[in-house]
Amino acid sequence: MAVAAGRTGRPTLAVVGATGAVGTVMLQILSHRADIWGEIRLIASSRSAGRKLAVRGEEIEVLALAEEVFDGVDVALFDVPDEIAEHWAPIAAAKGAVVVDNSGAFRSDPEVPLVVPEVNPHALRARPRGIVANPSCTTLCMIVAVGALHAEYGLRELVASSYQAVSGAGRAGVATLRRQMSLVAGTELGTSPGDVRRAVGDDTGPFPEPVALNVVPWTGEARADGWSSEEMTVRDETRKVLGLSALPVAVTCVRVPVVTAHSLTLHARFESEVTVAKAREILATAPGVVLFDDPGAGEFPTPADVVGTDPTWVGRVRRALDDPTALDFFACGDNLRKGSALNTVQIAELVVGARA
Amino acid sequence: MAVAAGRTGRPTLAVVGATGAVGTVMLQILSHRADIWGEIRLIASSRSAGRKLAVRGEEIEVLALAEEVFDGVDVALFDVPDEIAEHWAPIAAAKGAVVVDNSGAFRSDPEVPLVVPEVNPHALRARPRGIVANPSCTTLCMIVAVGALHAEYGLRELVASSYQAVSGAGRAGVATLRRQMSLVAGTELGTSPGDVRRAVGDDTGPFPEPVALNVVPWTGEARADGWSSEEMTVRDETRKVLGLSALPVAVTCVRVPVVTAHSLTLHARFESEVTVAKAREILATAPGVVLFDDPGAGEFPTPADVVGTDPTWVGRVRRALDDPTALDFFACGDNLRKGSALNTVQIAELVVGARA
Repeated sequence: MAVAAGRTGRPTLAVVGATGAVGTVMLQILSHRADIWGEIRLIASSRSAGRKLAVRGEEIEVLALAEEVFDGVDVALFDVPDEIAEHWAPIAAAKGAVVVDNSGAFRSDPEVPLVVPEVNPHALRARPRGIVANPSCTTLCMIVAVGALHAEYGLRELVASSYQAVSGAGRAGVATLRRQMSLVAGTELGTSPGDVRRAVGDDTGPFPEPVALNVVPWTGEARADGWSSEEMTVRDETRKVLGLSALPVAVTCVRVPVVTAHSLTLHARFESEVTVAKAREILATAPGVVLFDDPGAGEFPTPADVVGTDPTWVGRVRRALDDPTALDFFACGDNLRKGSALNTVQIAELVVGARA
Repeated sequence: MAVAAGRTGRPTLAVVGATGAVGTVMLQILSHRADIWGEIRLIASSRSAGRKLAVRGEEIEVLALAEEVFDGVDVALFDVPDEIAEHWAPIAAAKGAVVVDNSGAFRSDPEVPLVVPEVNPHALRARPRGIVANPSCTTLCMIVAVGALHAEYGLRELVASSYQAVSGAGRAGVATLRRQMSLVAGTELGTSPGDVRRAVGDDTGPFPEPVALNVVPWTGEARADGWSSEEMTVRDETRKVLGLSALPVAVTCVRVPVVTAHSLTLHARFESEVTVAKAREILATAPGVVLFDDPGAGEFPTPADVVGTDPTWVGRVRRALDDPTALDFFACGDNLRKGSALNTVQIAELVVGARA
């Protein structure tokens, strides 16, 4: 655990879940952003302990998750299943680390702030449990754009539909789409009932239905009254991040055969009349947002272009034809970067910046 | 042009555009529905004249489009480009045929009814030009369900997002997706900016962007204020079919890598309070609708199951959590069947039924 020369005195960062899909992207992001950290400690399950992973150009050995690995840690990024986070985040916090957790375990806890640095950095100040939660990837792929418009116009209602990439379900999601793509490419499938299902067989991986040549209007688990957990999460998180506890939010979450980058269509109604010119100006200048919006010239974001980039991309900005207070638009973001790893790293930077 | 024995005295049907993607499905549908037609005359461009196509188990020679092919025709189904329809539909009508047109040429003409037999069959009565228009595939894949709910509750606002299959862009759309699928299957593409685009090259067919491993938030041509022609069409058609000329409708149209079957997420606000139980009852009993809605048991419609079937499938029916007058749901229909060919055949049947 030696600290490289010149890094003495800098804060220590732990990455818990370093070998996962999001953990891998965390290490890439840490390697490319301003080098503010002293030691970076990589932690995973005992199964992965001893593996070496590259970060900031150095090979670092992965440590098994245990109480003592949090000794001296200033900030710990967690990307692990809910039940692991629930158990280990308080342990890390008790050791003095600020935990930035990307699971669903703490997002709705009133004593845990849910932070998007571009939208509600002030929420980071009050963290009585020593834990900060990272919103879910679907919320994060649109909330920076929605937040910028809310700051100007005051949001009154949001209707959202998602087009979610398979990597939102981790490595297993990506592997499943790739296997199914190989089975259906070069065939005439997709033209009679159930033909894709028969070709794919029971190999639906983490999804309830085939995802190649298909869209699946279900992500997460069943909640009351027909809603999915993911839909409730997007609603609750939007309210919490924007500080609008009674905001009407209607969300339908749909999985699509895209590897990485979630898209959403948004119908947002505001307190006062909007203009497209002003909305475009807000989005074009908002930190973390790229406005890419000239469809006549072929300019609108798509996952194929957005994957691997940091910002929230926005296009198709229109004023509702029948409501001068509403905007319709399309947002697209990399669910592994801004949707997960990048936002946790940004929170961690804000935590130590606030301390400095 | 001999009429098979037993069919004497029955009405003559012409199918104009018989060799296209939709025309092909028209012939399949005519072969499977109740055999009410006398002669079925197949018509296409001179390029396709002389080809033989099967309908009702008979091989029929395709005739080249010309004035005299409409002699004695009672009903003519048209599935041809707008400019061909604009020229030839009035000619067929002048010859005494009732034209059922599936192009965009007449949909907004106030003297041409826009008909969905389950929703507004009465509109068929007044057809001063002798032409009846078939709505676009995107409208048709949700309007039967929306219409059934409107009949009970009175629709006040509709927010829709589409997940449109490539066959909505005809055979070229399907061929493009299949080519692109073969290029990207078995690769690690979809994980860095532009990698899918580079693999696909300029081979984007009728779409502005790659559609494999992607979603494309643009269908149709550019209209005023950032809207696409398809989005305006869905809005105008919903208003016209439901007879609600001032209905607020906000639509975002998105292409997805599905071969056939369009899906839509819908947020529908009504005049009075709704209940999910009653909404489900309405949808379960509405002609032309199948309610498939038990997500906890894995029941919701997806294109892979809906393709090749006639009804509009509906699932994910929920009451909006913050508005007792609004429903959120997911609709899915075969864009070549109910979305095009089937609805024109249903209109034709209604035309001759009304005469009988």
